[in-house]
Amino acid sequence: MTLDELFAIVEERRGGDPSASYVAKSFARGRAKLAQKVGEESVETVIAAMTGDRAALIAESADLLFHLTMLWAEAGVAPAEVMAALDGRRGTSGLDEKASRKEP
Amino acid sequence: MTLDELFAIVEERRGGDPSASYVAKSFARGRAKLAQKVGEESVETVIAAMTGDRAALIAESADLLFHLTMLWAEAGVAPAEVMAALDGRRGTSGLDEKASRKEP
Amino acid sequence: MTLDELFAIVEERRGGDPSASYVAKSFARGRAKLAQKVGEESVETVIAAMTGDRAALIAESADLLFHLTMLWAEAGVAPAEVMAALDGRRGTSGLDEKASRKEP
Amino acid sequence: MTLDELFAIVEERRGGDPSASYVAKSFARGRAKLAQKVGEESVETVIAAMTGDRAALIAESADLLFHLTMLWAEAGVAPAEVMAALDGRRGTSGLDEKASRKEP
Repeated sequence: MTLDELFAIVEERRGGDPSASYVAKSFARGRAKLAQKVGEESVETVIAAMTGDRAALIAESADLLFHLTMLWAEAGVAPAEVMAALDGRRGTSGLDEKASRKEP
Repeated sequence: MTLDELFAIVEERRGGDPSASYVAKSFARGRAKLAQKVGEESVETVIAAMTGDRAALIAESADLLFHLTMLWAEAGVAPAEVMAALDGRRGTSGLDEKASRKEP
Repeated sequence: MTLDELFAIVEERRGGDPSASYVAKSFARGRAKLAQKVGEESVETVIAAMTGDRAALIAESADLLFHLTMLWAEAGVAPAEVMAALDGRRGTSGLDEKASRKEP
Repeated sequence: MTLDELFAIVEERRGGDPSASYVAKSFARGRAKLAQKVGEESVETVIAAMTGDRAALIAESADLLFHLTMLWAEAGVAPAEVMAALDGRRGTSGLDEKASRKEP
């Protein structure tokens, strides 16, 4: 699966029945709860990385991408826009140079 | 850019000169600092979503994916493994059903 | 120092010169940046706990309380209100029972 | 209630019956889960602040202090040590000067 495919699944299901679909239920709870889940899943990703639990890191990263994609959809942001932002940091010096400016 | 391409850039640069490359410097600082950045970028993503700042949501999400990809690389996790975990949640009931089991 | 004393220091300095006072500067940047710092300091506290770095856990917890107290002040919340919420969870079954209702 | 009193309650209950006490159950789950809860409660505190929900900010801050205190206890850190770290930042220029060094 790609981020685009994940996003398409989320977009397809967001208008569904909240009692039958986790995606639909998540959207029904609103942006604050979607953002909260992104924060919580990232905490679990951090913990998995720190405990060295490779399987948990994969599973929690999947949860993080899933909820991040829902947050994007709720805000009308497409994955292509996020990936384009990363593209914009390439060039002569690439991602490094742009990121370096942020962290001198 | 796709997640796979971002991951390839990270893998290519991680062994570079820490004084010239943000990626190389980030890896030199170790897993804990990589994990910390994932946590911090997710906080910024959450804040951007809550303030309704669409451009910031895109930029912070790009930062989050960038640092998450570095954390994966440091732990020897490929993007394909994370996406496969999402694939595994499809099927008859799809992503929804698996996620529902997590949040009854 | 107690939380009340920390809060009093924050309240006293928040109206100061942002170029001379970190507290004044933090308030000048607004609620979103204060909230962001609370999130970031909690990530650092989590990382310190996971790495077993006792000195870092103390230092990061101090940073977390400092920024949390500023966030309270910005929102017009006094430490006594937060501690009263904890008091309200005591009683026959104490903190345990209240918390248990949240996490069955 | 003060932080010291909250800490005393936590210390008293941590060795209790996990099936009857949320504190005892939390300690039985280990440090990683305690750290995870600190991260999650801070996310909820950030969201409450951003939505301007004053009552939620108080309630989530109480949850954050509760779980932070358990994390301290698990790591053998006393509240007095954290407050002493804050005391150490006072002096001629107070908390401000120390914090300013961190964030030029």
